[in-house]
Amino acid sequence: MKQKFILVVGAGRSSSALITYLLAEAARFNWTIIVGDISLEAAQNRVGDSLHGKAIYFNIDEHERCRKAIAASDVVISLMPPHLHIRVAKACLIEKRHLLTASYVTDEMKSLDHEVRSNDLLFLNECGLDPGIDHMSAMQVIDSIKIKGGKLITFESFTGGLISGKTDPENPWRYKFTWNPRNVVMAGQGTAKFLQEGEYKFIPYHQLFLRTTPVTVPGFGEYEGYANRDSLSYLDTYGLKGIKTMLRGTLRYKGFCKAWNVLVQLGCCDDTYQMEEVGNMTHAGFVNSFLDNRASASVEEKLIANFSLSPLGEEIMRLRWSGLFSDEKVGLNSGSPAQILEFILNKKWKLKSGDKDFIVMWHRFVYEIGDSLKEIQAHLTVTGDDEVNTAMAKTVGLPLAIAAKLLLEGKIKSRGVVIPVNEDIYKPVLKELSQNGIALVEREIN
Amino acid sequence: MKQKFILVVGAGRSSSALITYLLAEAARFNWTIIVGDISLEAAQNRVGDSLHGKAIYFNIDEHERCRKAIAASDVVISLMPPHLHIRVAKACLIEKRHLLTASYVTDEMKSLDHEVRSNDLLFLNECGLDPGIDHMSAMQVIDSIKIKGGKLITFESFTGGLISGKTDPENPWRYKFTWNPRNVVMAGQGTAKFLQEGEYKFIPYHQLFLRTTPVTVPGFGEYEGYANRDSLSYLDTYGLKGIKTMLRGTLRYKGFCKAWNVLVQLGCCDDTYQMEEVGNMTHAGFVNSFLDNRASASVEEKLIANFSLSPLGEEIMRLRWSGLFSDEKVGLNSGSPAQILEFILNKKWKLKSGDKDFIVMWHRFVYEIGDSLKEIQAHLTVTGDDEVNTAMAKTVGLPLAIAAKLLLEGKIKSRGVVIPVNEDIYKPVLKELSQNGIALVEREIN
Repeated sequence: MKQKFILVVGAGRSSSALITYLLAEAARFNWTIIVGDISLEAAQNRVGDSLHGKAIYFNIDEHERCRKAIAASDVVISLMPPHLHIRVAKACLIEKRHLLTASYVTDEMKSLDHEVRSNDLLFLNECGLDPGIDHMSAMQVIDSIKIKGGKLITFESFTGGLISGKTDPENPWRYKFTWNPRNVVMAGQGTAKFLQEGEYKFIPYHQLFLRTTPVTVPGFGEYEGYANRDSLSYLDTYGLKGIKTMLRGTLRYKGFCKAWNVLVQLGCCDDTYQMEEVGNMTHAGFVNSFLDNRASASVEEKLIANFSLSPLGEEIMRLRWSGLFSDEKVGLNSGSPAQILEFILNKKWKLKSGDKDFIVMWHRFVYEIGDSLKEIQAHLTVTGDDEVNTAMAKTVGLPLAIAAKLLLEGKIKSRGVVIPVNEDIYKPVLKELSQNGIALVEREIN
Repeated sequence: MKQKFILVVGAGRSSSALITYLLAEAARFNWTIIVGDISLEAAQNRVGDSLHGKAIYFNIDEHERCRKAIAASDVVISLMPPHLHIRVAKACLIEKRHLLTASYVTDEMKSLDHEVRSNDLLFLNECGLDPGIDHMSAMQVIDSIKIKGGKLITFESFTGGLISGKTDPENPWRYKFTWNPRNVVMAGQGTAKFLQEGEYKFIPYHQLFLRTTPVTVPGFGEYEGYANRDSLSYLDTYGLKGIKTMLRGTLRYKGFCKAWNVLVQLGCCDDTYQMEEVGNMTHAGFVNSFLDNRASASVEEKLIANFSLSPLGEEIMRLRWSGLFSDEKVGLNSGSPAQILEFILNKKWKLKSGDKDFIVMWHRFVYEIGDSLKEIQAHLTVTGDDEVNTAMAKTVGLPLAIAAKLLLEGKIKSRGVVIPVNEDIYKPVLKELSQNGIALVEREIN
């Protein structure tokens, strides 16, 4: 078997499961796994002592060096920060190499489609968890409904990266940072767009955490979902023209959104300006920057009055637990509201040794068949092993690793800039995911 | 007396009073007033039959032609859309001509200061109503407090462009479009920044219309003010280092802000995306795009429930009066939420024949002198003659016209990129404004 080279760029926190999988399969397939990062040490840590792995220094700003590394590989997997994918993509196009990412397709990436296709290349994006497994598991159900002659009326899909029941049982948010904390703080900014009962709907950021959808996952409790940015853009990709309701979103444990909404209403998640005199700022002082001084009361009392919160309610309890009313110094010298909030929250929300994260995905399909209306609900859950081998790293990394394997085996025929909604991709990826304990549980309702 | 040329570029709605004033003074000072606009007809209409005026075609994209027109003038007054001032400014710098505008100083304009000063030129900005008369009338009081040895503790200043009591008495908003409607719809976007009791305060857009300041103007009724974008940037300009409370804002009749807040909460003022299927959209359909369909109720009922409005209250009455729940077609084929809202509101808020607008400005100063705390409140009101000779056009245009006259007379010595906070500008401008019936009424409180 001809030796093949897989280049993984970016050795950050979501790369562990991906690289472990590829190294484990390397001997059988005669692969060498090259892990590149701007920190050679980080890359080296991921590769460990494996005979099939090699760490290299990879800095996207050093064009020649990057192009050489890409030219020497058969397929490139980029786990770099999303805004850098396009630069990897352009180098892959010059060197005529396949590219896989777990990130959303940008317009700029999409614009490469014709050129990618005419070079017989695959640039597979959105092949992680969300986006990724959500697309694949939903399309499998959607296609099965089509095959039996059903017409899809409603599709709702929510995914959340949470913590397991055993981690921090005292944490009233039931949440910690299991992926990029900055993205968590800024989640939902912009306008959510979706279809509801045949009408276009738009939710501005400041209403987003008030307009939630309740979700019950059998055996796993109560959740709530808020809409993701642009569900409409998937109408074409999913082949859902004519559908009445189409909503993709994010899942949180019940009660999270009402408390988070207080931070949104205050303006704490704004990243567009720098605050003043941050060096002397306390947690309570940070919150007070967004409250009126005319009422003479404590910060907590003013917050309660301002947002008509119950003084003994869950929202104020969550905010208090996060230390937001304490006189502790923030510990930064400058920052935007979003940066300061992230820094304060991270004091409690950073994963610590032994913490297990928990992924939950939920889909709802309503379809017409003959004269009757049917409903399917489906869910998928994954629990992390510990604070390094997280469910997040597994569910983001394994789809990419499996897709890379299938591509090198010649089993994926799709070409161009695509997402994994085609059967030749989702079917074998889902099959192998299920062998790794990551599988959708479907049930007919009514 | 040597003949002088004043070039006015932009012959839009706020130019009437300015040009009328200049033409009236032209004979006495041996001036010729050149009015330039991209519409020669608009320029011609402003000049009329005056022997001292001349209309020209002025298109900022035709560089050579613009430079020639500027070179042939002694001073340039720009009433063009604010983003174009910088191009006029650069041409003025090349041709070494003074420039006056009524618009906020941008960073780019500010960066020309050194060059403007070293060419012995004056680029006077923010010399209209707000910004303009607000700066001048406030600085006169602030300087008088300093002169008598007082230390300013609090400065609050609000200005509103409203309608007079006799116009549309049935209009529950007590408001119509008297300046750029687009700016009215998008007013307040961004984050308001100010000082309150020695602390920095930040109000995000979606809280802005909930955090109002009540204002009573003796003899003119009850108003409410919301904070303008960045009050902090005036601490230096006004020489107010060490002040405890500093807030600049916009005034509306009492009750306006709570109703406008509903539109903000819905997301109707967003200009960042295009809506879908606008050609078929009704007013009620527009509002419904921002409401959940899960409740089966009318758009009005859903709105009432969603924002906990009183069904017989003032907010819903204002929204209903604006036709927002009607089945009338919007009448546009495409548009952002902000563009569609502006178009709907304009059906009721466009000035009609005989309408009179009404300007109200209010300042509050608290200062320490010796051991005691003193307070001054001051207000200024102007009523328009009709829908053309508006109070807005007068109060924006006259300060510019008077400043141009003083500059040509050699009575303004300030140079560089400045705003009218210096005594050599504000004192004579305010004096002549008061001869035109535009004057601040001061009163000591306590």
